[in-house]
Amino acid sequence: MKKFTSALLLMLSFTASADEGMWQPHQLPELESILKQKGLEIDPKNISKLTEFPMNAVISLGGCTASFVSPKGLVVTNHHCAYGSIQYNSTPENNYLENGFLAGALQQELPAAPGSRMYVTEEVTDVTASIKEDLDEDLSGQQRYQLIDQRSKSLVSECEQDEGYRCEVYSFHGGLEYYLIKALEIRDVRLVYAPSMSVGKYGGDIDNWMWPRQTGDFSFYRAYVGPDGQPADYSEDNKPFTPPSFLKVSAKGVERGDFVMVAGYPGRTNRYRTADEVEAAFTYSYPTAKQYREEMIDVIKTTAPEGSDARIKYESTIAGLANYAKNYGSMIQSYERSGFQQQKQAFENGLMDWLNQSEARLAHFGGAIDELQALIEAEQAHQQRDLAMGYINRTALLPTAQRLYRLAHERQKPDMERESGYQQRDMKRFEQSMTRLSRRFDAEVDKAVLLHFIKNYQQLPESQHIAEFDAFFGLGDGFDEAKLRDKLNAMYANTELDEEDARLKWMNASVEAFKNSDDPFIQYAVTMYDKAMTMEAEEKERSGQFQALRPAYMEAVIAYMESLGKPVYADANSTLRVTYGNVKGYSPKDGVYMTPFTSLRGLLQKETGEEPFNSPDKLLKLADKEFHGGYELESLDSVPVNFLSTVDTTGGNSGSATMNGKAELVGLLFDGVYESIIGDWHFDDNLNRSIHVDSRYMLYIMEHVDEADNLLEEMVIVE
Amino acid sequence: MKKFTSALLLMLSFTASADEGMWQPHQLPELESILKQKGLEIDPKNISKLTEFPMNAVISLGGCTASFVSPKGLVVTNHHCAYGSIQYNSTPENNYLENGFLAGALQQELPAAPGSRMYVTEEVTDVTASIKEDLDEDLSGQQRYQLIDQRSKSLVSECEQDEGYRCEVYSFHGGLEYYLIKALEIRDVRLVYAPSMSVGKYGGDIDNWMWPRQTGDFSFYRAYVGPDGQPADYSEDNKPFTPPSFLKVSAKGVERGDFVMVAGYPGRTNRYRTADEVEAAFTYSYPTAKQYREEMIDVIKTTAPEGSDARIKYESTIAGLANYAKNYGSMIQSYERSGFQQQKQAFENGLMDWLNQSEARLAHFGGAIDELQALIEAEQAHQQRDLAMGYINRTALLPTAQRLYRLAHERQKPDMERESGYQQRDMKRFEQSMTRLSRRFDAEVDKAVLLHFIKNYQQLPESQHIAEFDAFFGLGDGFDEAKLRDKLNAMYANTELDEEDARLKWMNASVEAFKNSDDPFIQYAVTMYDKAMTMEAEEKERSGQFQALRPAYMEAVIAYMESLGKPVYADANSTLRVTYGNVKGYSPKDGVYMTPFTSLRGLLQKETGEEPFNSPDKLLKLADKEFHGGYELESLDSVPVNFLSTVDTTGGNSGSATMNGKAELVGLLFDGVYESIIGDWHFDDNLNRSIHVDSRYMLYIMEHVDEADNLLEEMVIVE
Repeated sequence: MKKFTSALLLMLSFTASADEGMWQPHQLPELESILKQKGLEIDPKNISKLTEFPMNAVISLGGCTASFVSPKGLVVTNHHCAYGSIQYNSTPENNYLENGFLAGALQQELPAAPGSRMYVTEEVTDVTASIKEDLDEDLSGQQRYQLIDQRSKSLVSECEQDEGYRCEVYSFHGGLEYYLIKALEIRDVRLVYAPSMSVGKYGGDIDNWMWPRQTGDFSFYRAYVGPDGQPADYSEDNKPFTPPSFLKVSAKGVERGDFVMVAGYPGRTNRYRTADEVEAAFTYSYPTAKQYREEMIDVIKTTAPEGSDARIKYESTIAGLANYAKNYGSMIQSYERSGFQQQKQAFENGLMDWLNQSEARLAHFGGAIDELQALIEAEQAHQQRDLAMGYINRTALLPTAQRLYRLAHERQKPDMERESGYQQRDMKRFEQSMTRLSRRFDAEVDKAVLLHFIKNYQQLPESQHIAEFDAFFGLGDGFDEAKLRDKLNAMYANTELDEEDARLKWMNASVEAFKNSDDPFIQYAVTMYDKAMTMEAEEKERSGQFQALRPAYMEAVIAYMESLGKPVYADANSTLRVTYGNVKGYSPKDGVYMTPFTSLRGLLQKETGEEPFNSPDKLLKLADKEFHGGYELESLDSVPVNFLSTVDTTGGNSGSATMNGKAELVGLLFDGVYESIIGDWHFDDNLNRSIHVDSRYMLYIMEHVDEADNLLEEMVIVE
Repeated sequence: MKKFTSALLLMLSFTASADEGMWQPHQLPELESILKQKGLEIDPKNISKLTEFPMNAVISLGGCTASFVSPKGLVVTNHHCAYGSIQYNSTPENNYLENGFLAGALQQELPAAPGSRMYVTEEVTDVTASIKEDLDEDLSGQQRYQLIDQRSKSLVSECEQDEGYRCEVYSFHGGLEYYLIKALEIRDVRLVYAPSMSVGKYGGDIDNWMWPRQTGDFSFYRAYVGPDGQPADYSEDNKPFTPPSFLKVSAKGVERGDFVMVAGYPGRTNRYRTADEVEAAFTYSYPTAKQYREEMIDVIKTTAPEGSDARIKYESTIAGLANYAKNYGSMIQSYERSGFQQQKQAFENGLMDWLNQSEARLAHFGGAIDELQALIEAEQAHQQRDLAMGYINRTALLPTAQRLYRLAHERQKPDMERESGYQQRDMKRFEQSMTRLSRRFDAEVDKAVLLHFIKNYQQLPESQHIAEFDAFFGLGDGFDEAKLRDKLNAMYANTELDEEDARLKWMNASVEAFKNSDDPFIQYAVTMYDKAMTMEAEEKERSGQFQALRPAYMEAVIAYMESLGKPVYADANSTLRVTYGNVKGYSPKDGVYMTPFTSLRGLLQKETGEEPFNSPDKLLKLADKEFHGGYELESLDSVPVNFLSTVDTTGGNSGSATMNGKAELVGLLFDGVYESIIGDWHFDDNLNRSIHVDSRYMLYIMEHVDEADNLLEEMVIVE
């Protein structure tokens, strides 16, 4: 490794500072003095134990977080986390999405959308030793990958012997540590209460990631178990689950500056990527992906004009594409305006200087860091191809054919040896994905998007091409667009994969049957199979290498940070984390300050009467009268609706209870501000703000608009 | 008049409160205690005297305000007020607009644009008695109008006997009072210094009326007089004017909360219009005018495509149309969101209640107020026609022909009896308008716009039509668009008014020559003349009636306000006014607070490198180094660039000195925020904010970017 001398040892905001950090509960005792000083009133050791209050009141919905708020299994989460279940139960006659839903009694509670689950984390076991035992340095990447994969699977399988549990092995710090997490899996989830969409989704996509915000993003579920108290499928005989504990709800709420903490399941962050990885992401991947998304929207809109049936099928696809084009746009803008790249580089320089100060350190870490850099470069060498193929595979039929053919192969193996996603435990979800496809598919649109992205791929340099793909579609030298069009027309005309029954039938077909099929998409899958497997193997080889090298890098980072007296949290990985901070506004730009609360008065000002700014009449009338019904924040002279805090969160945290220093629920986290989208890579003290719905607004809506007296009665509300 | 009983006597923000008010200097002693309490350190009586410091340092540029800042006639104003002069002196070789201009010595100073003037107000005489003497109640409106007009003209003429002076009679409170204002008219105005446009117009039209703002909107002129010290036309022998006083410039500047006052020449406000007038303006006139402007932009853009020569000629027309479409949009939005209409109504109800309390008051004011209401209704009866004709007359040739023919008629009268605008004193400006036309005219565009608005007019109800106009263009029943197109094609093909020489020639033609002309536009003017005169007479009749009724209404308003212990200021009318307030931010909406200062750091964040966000390299380098050069605002940790205050200003105030409690210059007023555009009608304490360029930023640019050491030397700079 090159000796690096840096005159400028900048310890900038990359290092954990202020309220940055998504902490594993067991780390919290280390932060005791900070937490106390910030305003935590309960003992930090409490939060560090998963099986004690308040952590055992916090649960995962798989992608969202929720909390128990009554001894009878009542659960609160975001409206957007329960959206699918509200939609599932809505009919033109009983439009719960539009009008809201309130079960007046247990027997009126409705089954949540199929597949809805609640996971109550019960055990977190450090399995690093089991996973890494005898993992020789000379193992190839692929061997390493396979070994880790097999060991994880057998740990999971063993753990899931205990009926009613879902287990998973999670890697931390890129594979430095592994934890087996065992969660009670509640399968009978019921919808209890949701305000109308005009409260719960107020501001809609327009206000997504935005402040000021006035969204009543909350809803209630209930957990049910069998008569024996064990998880069970839906049944009339089931009864409410008795949670180990539950959160009290604060009617007093928070004020500017108050301590808050959030416990939840943040999905994924990239805070420890190298400077090279950051540069590639922000100067190539995000700008290109943003462009691809915008192109895809254009193609869909042109092919499926406003008002067409096809357009209706693609509205949510368009919204999703646009949403993340906006997301990437924010990140690119933040990247350009911030000193993130320089700070990242300065941190690496600091790390290198520290390594260079000791021959022993250099010997221990140096080689691995150089290898990591080389591996990153190797991976970046085909980033254009990967991104282009990624968008080709956003069409429906091409990847569907490949997944079905892959299933035929995997089904030949014993269950434990199958690829994740193709095991017996995955078959229900696989089938659902095959049936769901129809609702969001139109052949003409799918074809037009495929054509667009194949043409896009065709323009990449030779080095980024896949020979088998080129051969199948007649690309490369002498490319003729007209011929490609003909080919695609023929493919879509002659496939049966656009039929749900056919897709389901192919789920049980043999490899032989695929090979003999004359369905053009199946033929594509068969043609590409060997190459796809080779590429996957290369990918796994690299993954296995990363599994060796990232831990080494992270070990160096952790040691370096330790030398500076700073604790290190792991990147988010969908496991339970705790983050803390304060209620606080921010300045997105010169001359502008975002104040930490929005109000009922402000909601009235924003009202246009048109979706998504169309509050229920009842709420408008109360707001117009400045009726505060006991939930006023005096300094605001109104009912607080949403508030900002400095807590460090990301997707997956949605629905998390926001707690005060006594672990009372003072709100629900539901979003971050526009300037903090880059937070997945880079936490900026001055700009990173989470958005919460205020418990006072929740109670106000429940008491005065929706009259959910039964639930208010059931919960424990404290002043 | 109807007796009105209002249970709810709301004394809302319509009444003068907080910092509302554009005060005539002589009123200031009344406000002494408020001014002292607010932070005025000098004696309020000083500000009340026009011929003493600081008021005699404040001058008008006709449409803008400026101030003397040295004993040698150096004058500071806004960059946008000196824009025409900078542009006039710019050539491709010496592009002063782009690069800025600095005269290193007197002899390098450049003549300002032709027609540039400085007006130093020397005397304000109450001439109410002379104007209103023996104005019988039985006079017709037209008679009243004529008498007032003649008396004004003769007062002006008498006053202007004094060479070197410009005099004007201004009516206050709609004609309750009249003042003759006598101002020294300096005709030799020279450009001394302007920063580059990328400082002086930073943010351009995008940021116009917007906060946050980082515009260095300042420039310097110098006043010159003849060797005898009297106003003179430009001559090399002229010498700098010695002003009666000048302002010191503060390098210390202001902080949040500090007292500021602004003396200047605000153009026009409508704060005392009736509830009916407000409703008509905001529910008909502004929305319709906004739509007309947007339509006109569309027509111009379609007819003159991007890149065409015609488009270049119309860029500034488009910008102006768009600018005011934005302005009207803001006003409509503010109107809808505020309780302005209700407050106005509540104020009127309060006034009526107060009148109803006394038979004597009712007898004195009641009749006039009822008549005023009836007159307003009568005027509103043809508001559709007036607005439609207004946009037809935004084309070039149609109104040019009418003005020229009008001139032929007016020239037959003695000068004193001519209509204003057609007197000898107006001829220079008239000629300039005839020559200037060519630069902003394209026949195809003019024709397309005319066609569009004639079609627009054609769709109005019968009651809004003008028979002569219909006859000339073949409108009304059986309207045929194709025929109208042919007619317009023929008109534009056969006119000579598109030639500058021809227009100038017609300035001296006789009425007879017009009547005999076969130029189609001249024929239009001749055809319409009698009707236009009749309409003008009707208009004057109404004006004359307003001149009787508004004063009566205002007298009631003033008496009512007096009964509440509140002083009343007159609507702005381009005369010298003083307004005071504090440096203060505001909340434009829920969850957002605009902080009162922007900074050099913020400018750097806004920078895109592309116009209008393209600061000079030198400034960027200094900003990047966080070099503050002695002009830092500590609480900002940067150089303050612009600031907000609560002072009550409008168009015409541009360039006004912003003074601290010692009457030192701490900035220049140059704009108001978006939410205060409605301020011309309605001052809202919470939203009305003026925007100032900070004196520290001016000095910073002068010292560190443009090295204007000679001027820094010449001015008196105080800490």
